Amino acid sequence: MKTKAPASFSLGIDYGTNSVRALIVRCSDGAEFGSCVFNYPSGKQGIILDRRNHNLARQNPADYLLGLEKSVRGALAIAKKQSDFSLDLIVGIGVDTTASSPMPVDKANTPLALNKRFAGNPAAHCWLWKDHTGWREAARITELAAQHRPHYIAKCGNTYSSEWFWSKIWHCLNTAPKVFDAAHSWVELADWIPSVLAGVRDPASIVRGVCCAGHKALYADEWGGLPDKEFLSMLDPKLATLRDRLYEKAHDAATPAGALCPEWARRLGGLRAGIPIAIGEIDVHYGAVGAGVREGTLIKVIGTSSCDCTVVPLSKNVADIPGICGIARGSILPGCHGIEAGLSAVGDIFKWWVEVVCQGEGKTHREFAAEVSAQKPGQSGLLALDWNNGNRNILTDQRLTGLLIGQTLHTTRAEIYRALIEATAFASRAIIERLREYGVPAKRIICAGGIAEKDPMLMQIYADVTGCAMQVTASSQACALGAAISAAVLAGAHRDFPAAQKAMTSVKPRQYKPIAANRKTYDKLYALYRHLHDAFGGLNKNADLTRVMKDLLAIKEEAARGK
Amino acid sequence: MKTKAPASFSLGIDYGTNSVRALIVRCSDGAEFGSCVFNYPSGKQGIILDRRNHNLARQNPADYLLGLEKSVRGALAIAKKQSDFSLDLIVGIGVDTTASSPMPVDKANTPLALNKRFAGNPAAHCWLWKDHTGWREAARITELAAQHRPHYIAKCGNTYSSEWFWSKIWHCLNTAPKVFDAAHSWVELADWIPSVLAGVRDPASIVRGVCCAGHKALYADEWGGLPDKEFLSMLDPKLATLRDRLYEKAHDAATPAGALCPEWARRLGGLRAGIPIAIGEIDVHYGAVGAGVREGTLIKVIGTSSCDCTVVPLSKNVADIPGICGIARGSILPGCHGIEAGLSAVGDIFKWWVEVVCQGEGKTHREFAAEVSAQKPGQSGLLALDWNNGNRNILTDQRLTGLLIGQTLHTTRAEIYRALIEATAFASRAIIERLREYGVPAKRIICAGGIAEKDPMLMQIYADVTGCAMQVTASSQACALGAAISAAVLAGAHRDFPAAQKAMTSVKPRQYKPIAANRKTYDKLYALYRHLHDAFGGLNKNADLTRVMKDLLAIKEEAARGK
Repeated sequence: MKTKAPASFSLGIDYGTNSVRALIVRCSDGAEFGSCVFNYPSGKQGIILDRRNHNLARQNPADYLLGLEKSVRGALAIAKKQSDFSLDLIVGIGVDTTASSPMPVDKANTPLALNKRFAGNPAAHCWLWKDHTGWREAARITELAAQHRPHYIAKCGNTYSSEWFWSKIWHCLNTAPKVFDAAHSWVELADWIPSVLAGVRDPASIVRGVCCAGHKALYADEWGGLPDKEFLSMLDPKLATLRDRLYEKAHDAATPAGALCPEWARRLGGLRAGIPIAIGEIDVHYGAVGAGVREGTLIKVIGTSSCDCTVVPLSKNVADIPGICGIARGSILPGCHGIEAGLSAVGDIFKWWVEVVCQGEGKTHREFAAEVSAQKPGQSGLLALDWNNGNRNILTDQRLTGLLIGQTLHTTRAEIYRALIEATAFASRAIIERLREYGVPAKRIICAGGIAEKDPMLMQIYADVTGCAMQVTASSQACALGAAISAAVLAGAHRDFPAAQKAMTSVKPRQYKPIAANRKTYDKLYALYRHLHDAFGGLNKNADLTRVMKDLLAIKEEAARGK
Repeated sequence: MKTKAPASFSLGIDYGTNSVRALIVRCSDGAEFGSCVFNYPSGKQGIILDRRNHNLARQNPADYLLGLEKSVRGALAIAKKQSDFSLDLIVGIGVDTTASSPMPVDKANTPLALNKRFAGNPAAHCWLWKDHTGWREAARITELAAQHRPHYIAKCGNTYSSEWFWSKIWHCLNTAPKVFDAAHSWVELADWIPSVLAGVRDPASIVRGVCCAGHKALYADEWGGLPDKEFLSMLDPKLATLRDRLYEKAHDAATPAGALCPEWARRLGGLRAGIPIAIGEIDVHYGAVGAGVREGTLIKVIGTSSCDCTVVPLSKNVADIPGICGIARGSILPGCHGIEAGLSAVGDIFKWWVEVVCQGEGKTHREFAAEVSAQKPGQSGLLALDWNNGNRNILTDQRLTGLLIGQTLHTTRAEIYRALIEATAFASRAIIERLREYGVPAKRIICAGGIAEKDPMLMQIYADVTGCAMQVTASSQACALGAAISAAVLAGAHRDFPAAQKAMTSVKPRQYKPIAANRKTYDKLYALYRHLHDAFGGLNKNADLTRVMKDLLAIKEEAARGK
């Protein structure tokens, strides 16, 4: 044991895109004592889709409640088998979720979807982060903000996303007005779960986190919280009225979201009622905490999408960074600016290629990787843009789509798979370079998430493309661990976050170092990637693309000769 | 019977990319009496490849000889079962082949590949039309011709292709000098097969066709035949020397290639020795004849690649047409300018997608087509460039590659399949528009080839994209039929080609007419196709591509709403 704190445990609950996971860790060293995953039963892999509208992605709040009970009880059942553990040693609960995933609730804080009247209406469900139905509204918000409140969007790359709070609520108002009218308030999933655990029966009493608010709802203390009513009226007067039923103040992780209510203490299997509940944060933000984020360290949480997070102490000035969304005080760690960037799709693109197009299975990923891992960079002659789900950074434009170039009659599926991995690496490099340009250092990169753990080819490509050594967090549950760390700090098991992170997080011994020859080729390919990126992404309206295919062939031939 | 000519039969032999087919038709009405296909046994589906060099594609001349015997004997065996037929009623033989497919031969007209010394050397084999190893040489020939002999390349779109005669021979000289030095002469496959049938033992005695010569070897009577020695010396003095061992004069189909020699009369199963052998032509040129080419009618032979042919009487002036390769006197029909354009890959692209990427089978094509045939144009949001094998027209640039744009996480393999079909339709439209701009009418379009017969979705897309009604030839063996027609005319069974075509060719009753609503959408998609085409193809060096992805999404949403 690294600290002299009394033996205590913390519970982290991580709501992902397809499932929820509960994790029990020892506060002294982060050791995992129990873990359990529950897959959301509704829709397709937990997501309610619409065949006619690929932008739609919703979730059933009933899945969240069922999953809360099942996953925690499952984790406890495992922990109980170990002698050091007992139920009353759990000192706190932390929750992280996807975001922005807002849902409409009634006056009693019950989701409208759980009301029979709206059960069949997707608009009454939770609007999952990757729902892009509000793209028109997002564009209009960007336009209005640029004209009237430029500071609102300066912190989120000057583009408001269709993935976020106001785009979704406004789209609901525009397309499902009955649902909008029936909603007393809207709550981010990250705030709602803690409020449920705390037994909150009134949306006004929910303790809202600045993490979701700052990044997604245009919240900032400096302009008095949420966007002002005059601005919201320009969108729709009903949104201005809604503002009164949302919140005035959002909090960082120094403030608790509440204390565990007796009902949920019982439902979770007999936890101590009254233990503190940490403020809810976006999954990858607590993931960054669980992976050891600090100044100068960039955490890449690589999952269906990716989130690249770092922090800068509040004592230092952070410029608004074009194309980076977003920057918010206290959104990751109290006392720091939280900086979040990322890709709209990473694992989702690979999954699309392997499962939708190639109709392979889980193991097919490894087969493809094995097939092309011996290939040299550039050898396929392919280049892809990773925009199948839009571009979050540095273009912040959801209305972009995928692109693949360089195919011949000999191009293989495994080569395209690798090109898609490379595309996400190039996009990651674009983010790192943009951060550096604006004085935010990223000296060290630590990756988290299943892909980082399981795909050495991807990790090596990321190292070669970015020129940075890649480390991987020791915990395979960085998000849940971060939530548990937040609860542990709140419960007094550690004096502050840095101390808790030092004790409870670590990296795996294997490090991926850039290979000089590969870097050289990837520098060339990255230049071509940026050329296409800028041309199709709107940064270059006078693009000369005459050489792109020929340059790719030249790189390919050079790679083949170098064999 | 439509004519009063005596009952007579003609034999057409069609050397394709993967197999050779013999066809026996009745001269009076083109009725098929026997047909037999022989698949080349060497390499992969008859093609010798090199895993390290996707540009390489060679064939074994031994396959041609074995296939000649096997296919003709097979066709005769079937014909013999019919009472109207007997061996001695065959009045002539016509041959068509892929081109430019030149091969090195020794002084006795024997391919070097059949000499043990060179048996394992791909350079000594036949350089199949789709071999692009000579792309550097092609670029240099284009450069030198542009500077010193611009008229040489004006008839082939101002770009000399890596698929052609001089690029290949020069590349052999540069990379396999021993083979080059051992070669007494080089012969196009289309000339070599007739010479074999005629028993020619000396390359100087081969009757060369203007079809291959004019399109592929820069031959024209107006500048004294093949390129002059001074020009060839600029490439390499050894090529100037070779010129003396090639040919002075090339002929159209009015001149016979020879008469059947006793040895081959016997080897083919007992044909009459001495019957005339028609001049060899490129497969698709005789295909155009067999499909009924005449002024104003464009024949599209759709196979692994496509060839779009039409004719203009010699009495009319035909301008050099930029990006169209090529225009040659007598190359299709005697007395006409033959105009040839086409796509470097059509069936090959679909095959690549279905078999290489999706790892499906032959029937998968139909499954994909069934899956998306109900989709409206534009509904997938996808757009492709059909350049997986380079671009023959109207860019004449083999160093271009494929492109696919508009992918989301929901894009299916069948949607991509359809996008690839659409891409070939857009490329076809670009050719038709270019011909029309230069005064060559294409009022009527007749398609030939297996794809035209078997794929109604493709035919409808072609009609919708081009705005032209599409007809399909009645014969499924237009190339072999055209070769047989040429032999029938030569043997006197018809007074001339128009009379023979009238008697021996027809179209199927089903016609594909453009659908107005589809045309409207495809006009928009074609504009985007041309925008990408011009940007990546080098016609537009200041391209604004900012809107492309968004325009595709707008078309997609419009199509979805229109459902």
